[in-house]
Amino acid sequence: MNLEQQITAMAKSAQKAARQLVSVSTTEKNKALKLMAKALLFHQGFLISENKKDLTAAAHGQSYSKALIERLTMREETIKEMAQCLLDTAKLKDPVGELMDSFKRPNGLLIQKIRVPIGVVAIVYESRPNVTSDAIGLCLKSSNAAILKGGREALYSNGAIFKILRDELSKTEIPIDAIQLLPSDDHRAFGFLLKLQKYVDVVIPRGGEELIRFVTENTRIPVIKHYQGICHTYVSEHADLNMAHKICMNAKVQKPGVCNAMETMLVAKDAALRFLPVIVEDMQKAGVEIRGCRLTRTIVKKPIKAASEKDWDTEYLDLILSVKVVHSLEEAIDHINTHGSHHSDCIVTEDKKEAKQFLQSVDSACLYVNASTRFTDGHQFGFGAEIGISTDKLHARGPMALNELTTYKYLVFGKGQVRQ
Amino acid sequence: MNLEQQITAMAKSAQKAARQLVSVSTTEKNKALKLMAKALLFHQGFLISENKKDLTAAAHGQSYSKALIERLTMREETIKEMAQCLLDTAKLKDPVGELMDSFKRPNGLLIQKIRVPIGVVAIVYESRPNVTSDAIGLCLKSSNAAILKGGREALYSNGAIFKILRDELSKTEIPIDAIQLLPSDDHRAFGFLLKLQKYVDVVIPRGGEELIRFVTENTRIPVIKHYQGICHTYVSEHADLNMAHKICMNAKVQKPGVCNAMETMLVAKDAALRFLPVIVEDMQKAGVEIRGCRLTRTIVKKPIKAASEKDWDTEYLDLILSVKVVHSLEEAIDHINTHGSHHSDCIVTEDKKEAKQFLQSVDSACLYVNASTRFTDGHQFGFGAEIGISTDKLHARGPMALNELTTYKYLVFGKGQVRQ
Repeated sequence: MNLEQQITAMAKSAQKAARQLVSVSTTEKNKALKLMAKALLFHQGFLISENKKDLTAAAHGQSYSKALIERLTMREETIKEMAQCLLDTAKLKDPVGELMDSFKRPNGLLIQKIRVPIGVVAIVYESRPNVTSDAIGLCLKSSNAAILKGGREALYSNGAIFKILRDELSKTEIPIDAIQLLPSDDHRAFGFLLKLQKYVDVVIPRGGEELIRFVTENTRIPVIKHYQGICHTYVSEHADLNMAHKICMNAKVQKPGVCNAMETMLVAKDAALRFLPVIVEDMQKAGVEIRGCRLTRTIVKKPIKAASEKDWDTEYLDLILSVKVVHSLEEAIDHINTHGSHHSDCIVTEDKKEAKQFLQSVDSACLYVNASTRFTDGHQFGFGAEIGISTDKLHARGPMALNELTTYKYLVFGKGQVRQ
Repeated sequence: MNLEQQITAMAKSAQKAARQLVSVSTTEKNKALKLMAKALLFHQGFLISENKKDLTAAAHGQSYSKALIERLTMREETIKEMAQCLLDTAKLKDPVGELMDSFKRPNGLLIQKIRVPIGVVAIVYESRPNVTSDAIGLCLKSSNAAILKGGREALYSNGAIFKILRDELSKTEIPIDAIQLLPSDDHRAFGFLLKLQKYVDVVIPRGGEELIRFVTENTRIPVIKHYQGICHTYVSEHADLNMAHKICMNAKVQKPGVCNAMETMLVAKDAALRFLPVIVEDMQKAGVEIRGCRLTRTIVKKPIKAASEKDWDTEYLDLILSVKVVHSLEEAIDHINTHGSHHSDCIVTEDKKEAKQFLQSVDSACLYVNASTRFTDGHQFGFGAEIGISTDKLHARGPMALNELTTYKYLVFGKGQVRQ
């Protein structure tokens, strides 16, 4: 078998497994998740030594960033968290089979709308090896087969996690082909997978522009993009400025490397004089580089970098903040709709009417009034888990967890009804 | 402006209009729909004379099928129905703003999940000019901007309908750019539109393999496919055979040219001797050409055409039926999952356990027990309208109406909460 045939066989067997998975009981799925959690802890030594191979390669090979190496590193703690995530997933309500709607038609037909798994879910991600077990757990709990593609930099780590989890499946009624790991040492493998719309129901790419573009340009399979977060906080002239200060500091500084961190702060002109000098000083103390618009730089009265047009469209994922003074709520809304990534945006205001207009007019997955955008997260939303944050509008928007890994079908019960 | 710039400007203005549409009241949207209905009736003469131009071109030009010309023809009755569809849409509940879910988190955050329009919806369709006004009505009622692309064969008809509807918009608060009609006399226009993922939120192609393939291969915009219906009816050995006879005849004969008509009849071996000879005779009397598997041909004992492998994958949309005798429920399920189009499939049985297995294992949008597949239709389901039947699994599956033209966003209300 050449590589293309191998990938096709993989996807085909995943589809077959997915169709069997539909009938596997919740108890059996939970049993599998618990076995997997136990196995990860048991094989901790093996996992850490395989992870070392990736870390060594990263250290010797191309110049990986410190942040990437941190995300790649597996410690005892990481493995405990992975096991815990599987146990938490076992505790979540099984979404499959949920009666979403039910209605009777005048002709006597009973129509039920039932939640069902999507089928075969392909997930593409980078660096963090824990995604391998988290995603497998969520897919299995929702009766989906999973085809995973991790990054080349996590080749050994992902391979080790996958092998351990797959071995456990053989002790359950879940077919082992329900989980598949794409070879990540041959980039052609992914290209072949993207051609298999006959077997794969959805591709979920989690990553940057290059990955998202590659996927959407090379597949006919539906895609749910987990793209960047260019998140804004708009501080209105009707804001409680102490609250605004606290929210902005948190949204920028608490964990700058994630998609729900603030990248651009918009400040109403009538609040700018009171608000900007203080927050800029505190941001700078916290190590944040400020890039301001012309008015910001005038008001702050100390040398800060000028924001270029490109800054408004940039996800820094770092201690950098672009700041713009706007003349109206409308200008703020327009700026966010034009430059944002439709992820998470916040207004700080005490004016309900203004808040309402912001919530209605900004076209983003998650909109906040008086709270940090950092809360956009499946766990924080109470979903108990997350496969990621969808920046798409179709099927799933914002935090994606078990329900978002399902679709539905209509069951129609008759007594011989025919159409007139 | 060249054509590409013209299409870009069109999509851009549609997006701008969509963002304004979010704030237009239900009353105002209904007013527009009623004005449009009235205008269609008022301009009946103009519509029929423009439609004549298309019919003349069709008669003189390429060899169009009788069925296509029938679908293309606009009569007084057609126009009345179009107007009625707009009035019916006005009566439907406005989906925008519906509170889909609401929950409070331990930290005090209130999270609301709110139904919102998708944004800019592109709909691509063929021949039937009534789709132009039906789709515009549904999109406007759900606060979406609509970009339509009809077939070249309906150039004058679609242009006339569009002009009448757009003129009415200028009497309302809805921006006229909320509806757009792509030039259908230059095929490049559609190609340009498919590149505009920045402005267009979804493409809904309603049509055959060639159209669906062209769209999915040429766009990064999410697509909801309205593809073919290869619908099956499986007659079990536990069926009430009189009921099965009635259901199969209806599913094949009542309106063979539509996507929810039966294309393949599967018959359990133990029912075949009793069931097949009678139904085949009655199908033939009704003008249906039968294409049977080897066993079917042996059992029926009169000359019928042999089904080829290709028949199992064919949507005839005509008075043709492929017939296969299967040895088990599992074989029936497997045949449908392999050869069907995941649209609508039926089992006729009195055995509840068997029905349950069929409903669980067949991977289609609509599954029937003891009723004709012809009921897969937004109106028949009680949705009051339909934009079409989605054969995709993501976002919308089966009949698509107002709710399926929406997505959601999360509104998070805080009092200064920040992430720990």
